[in-house]
Amino acid sequence: MSTRAGIVVTGTEVLTGRVSDRNGPWLAERLRELGVDLAYTAIVGDRPEDMRAALAFMAEQGLDVVVTSGGLGPTADDLTAEVVGGFQERPMELDEALSGRIAAIVAPLMKRWPNIDPEAIARANRKQATVPRGATVLEPVGTAPGLVVGPPQSRRGPTIVVLPGPPRELQPMWQTAAQTDALRAALRDATVYEQRTMRLFGIPESEIAETLRVAEREGVELGRIEVTTCLKRGEVEIVARYEPDAAEVYAAFAAVVESRHADTLFSEDGSTVDQQVAALLRERSWTIATAESCTGGLLAARLTELPGSSDYVRGAIVAYANEVKVALADVSLELIETHGAVSSQVAEALARGARARAGADVGVGITGVAGPGGGSEEKPVGLVWISVVLEEQEPITRSVNLPGGRADVRDRSTTVAMHLVRRALADA
Amino acid sequence: MSTRAGIVVTGTEVLTGRVSDRNGPWLAERLRELGVDLAYTAIVGDRPEDMRAALAFMAEQGLDVVVTSGGLGPTADDLTAEVVGGFQERPMELDEALSGRIAAIVAPLMKRWPNIDPEAIARANRKQATVPRGATVLEPVGTAPGLVVGPPQSRRGPTIVVLPGPPRELQPMWQTAAQTDALRAALRDATVYEQRTMRLFGIPESEIAETLRVAEREGVELGRIEVTTCLKRGEVEIVARYEPDAAEVYAAFAAVVESRHADTLFSEDGSTVDQQVAALLRERSWTIATAESCTGGLLAARLTELPGSSDYVRGAIVAYANEVKVALADVSLELIETHGAVSSQVAEALARGARARAGADVGVGITGVAGPGGGSEEKPVGLVWISVVLEEQEPITRSVNLPGGRADVRDRSTTVAMHLVRRALADA
Repeated sequence: MSTRAGIVVTGTEVLTGRVSDRNGPWLAERLRELGVDLAYTAIVGDRPEDMRAALAFMAEQGLDVVVTSGGLGPTADDLTAEVVGGFQERPMELDEALSGRIAAIVAPLMKRWPNIDPEAIARANRKQATVPRGATVLEPVGTAPGLVVGPPQSRRGPTIVVLPGPPRELQPMWQTAAQTDALRAALRDATVYEQRTMRLFGIPESEIAETLRVAEREGVELGRIEVTTCLKRGEVEIVARYEPDAAEVYAAFAAVVESRHADTLFSEDGSTVDQQVAALLRERSWTIATAESCTGGLLAARLTELPGSSDYVRGAIVAYANEVKVALADVSLELIETHGAVSSQVAEALARGARARAGADVGVGITGVAGPGGGSEEKPVGLVWISVVLEEQEPITRSVNLPGGRADVRDRSTTVAMHLVRRALADA
Repeated sequence: MSTRAGIVVTGTEVLTGRVSDRNGPWLAERLRELGVDLAYTAIVGDRPEDMRAALAFMAEQGLDVVVTSGGLGPTADDLTAEVVGGFQERPMELDEALSGRIAAIVAPLMKRWPNIDPEAIARANRKQATVPRGATVLEPVGTAPGLVVGPPQSRRGPTIVVLPGPPRELQPMWQTAAQTDALRAALRDATVYEQRTMRLFGIPESEIAETLRVAEREGVELGRIEVTTCLKRGEVEIVARYEPDAAEVYAAFAAVVESRHADTLFSEDGSTVDQQVAALLRERSWTIATAESCTGGLLAARLTELPGSSDYVRGAIVAYANEVKVALADVSLELIETHGAVSSQVAEALARGARARAGADVGVGITGVAGPGGGSEEKPVGLVWISVVLEEQEPITRSVNLPGGRADVRDRSTTVAMHLVRRALADA
């Protein structure tokens, strides 16, 4: 029997979509590393009866562990500790020592905010230090303590790990929770699975369905590996998860993917195109710069996402206005007037301008129609020209017609550009 | 009795956190507009028994409507239509006419991908055209049809709306679903609520808890409005939801917030700081440009997120390397050597450089330590200097110490910069 878990994300602001949840995905990955099978993530608002119903559902499904995030703050709508205490049939008790430790954390923070009522703060501290009897307390990283709360002695049921909502508090506190005796006991039967990821670019997802059928016909025992495929930022991702003794089955499956999709398979070790571009630049000791119109700096922002990117990113020019294309990226006004700002010629000129002005080895130019306005029959919304120039070579320039709205077109343009850069660097 | 709904997001790639869900939040907002109370969002993998358990849970909670997203594709792990058909006790039947319509959609798309097996495509079309008996079919926007499937005659239960996973297919298909007789019947008792949003910047969330207590003491009937507060990208958001006859209660509550938080309340109509900056620039017919170091173009990307931003965004310089700060943004090398790249002086020089080089009315400079490396005792990770210069005036320059990891510091820097720009423009 595998060890199964659920996640309960609390907060009306998450349920209603005003805040996007970062904890569910992060916790999912941590559970996977521990060999735990995540069965459900439920998002509930700040209503105690809805939270209780979600916990009861997860208990009925026979889950071994439930992790909650959020609802540990100082406001009246922060109810998680109390609801979990009630669900595990444990009375709530004020932990005086914990209350003192929270007060010691809060005191210096409050210096930033003068004129705050000290009685309100004391009340908030006491609320946050009131915990279910017998729970293991996880020391606060912010001001809210977390909890590991076992089932009541009267019945079987999940061990519940209660964590605060802010990711930078939740993440270290999860690591602490994973070391507690209470959680280790609940996870003792977990099997550690292997997981492998392949990525392809420039292929429809339906082709992978066919490849799975081919692999099966060729005798690969796909029943022993769990394969999921998805489209993600324009790439197809194939993830396989299996028990360690099915490693040969995965190898056979990967061989079928390699032979059928050699031209579109760019990652067999799960590395992203961003990591590959960074590694290729480092290998060659080359630097890169961009000149962007429709993406407005998104490609530069993406290139500088990775720590240490200052080793190879020189900078960028966001040339939104045509005059800026001329003044900062050396695009000639005549070129813009002759071919239009969205053209292969301007994309190439931007790439050359970025390279020359920033003193980089590699220059990238992007110009397109992100929409919703500005499209024409000849140059519709979604048309994007991308150009890459290396050293003194001729630029490599491509156009794409990207689907979706403004945000989709801008984001997808950066993916296409990353792949064009990757190919250019790999071939150089 | 209010009308209540649930959302079931399907897909192992979402459950395991490899793809972040955009549909749940979008659907939550649409349900709210129709006066429907969203009770739960559940994320489940591509396992039919888990999907059935989630549907059964939502039915047990007495929900009137359940909306599912995902699992309508051509691959074998796409099971939603079949699971929903089974749950509503309806046999699956091939809709030949629908199969023909899907084939007509797919044919031109397949021209992009030569060498694809036509039999595999025909099989995929038939799978996607096999639907529960008596369901209302929603015509495909991509290739997958959606469904509105009522409960079986034998029992009460939710009407289930089945939508595809890609947001640009799901969104128009939801609008179609909302017009069907089947869904309108399920929603006929919905109450339309009012919703109002206030935003504050530069205040801890706990202060709002105190304000709620003050409002209550002053006699505001808070029981008649549902107030939730949350921290979002460094801002505090207060959302109130209420039946139309509680409008006066909301006005009284808003007056308490205004009087207590006049200095930090920047939005009483739900507008974002991004929208306010755009409106202020348009009002004054001013243009803006940025010169960014640690944010790597994120502020320019944020300024160009809004459609029509080419009216007021001139461009940007991403000056990651010091030589680029000198060459493209006119920062003197001496200034960098004397004060360091992360300093008020360099932030100001960047703001002036952006303004002059891009020919803009407003220049913004950002320089900081995003981490994880590069910090020192004097200039720790999270220290960011931001400067705004208008016309020929003295720059307005501030430093902040931002918490969190590299991505947090970069993102939060853009929020602080937007607020600094907003104040500078509002005071101009």
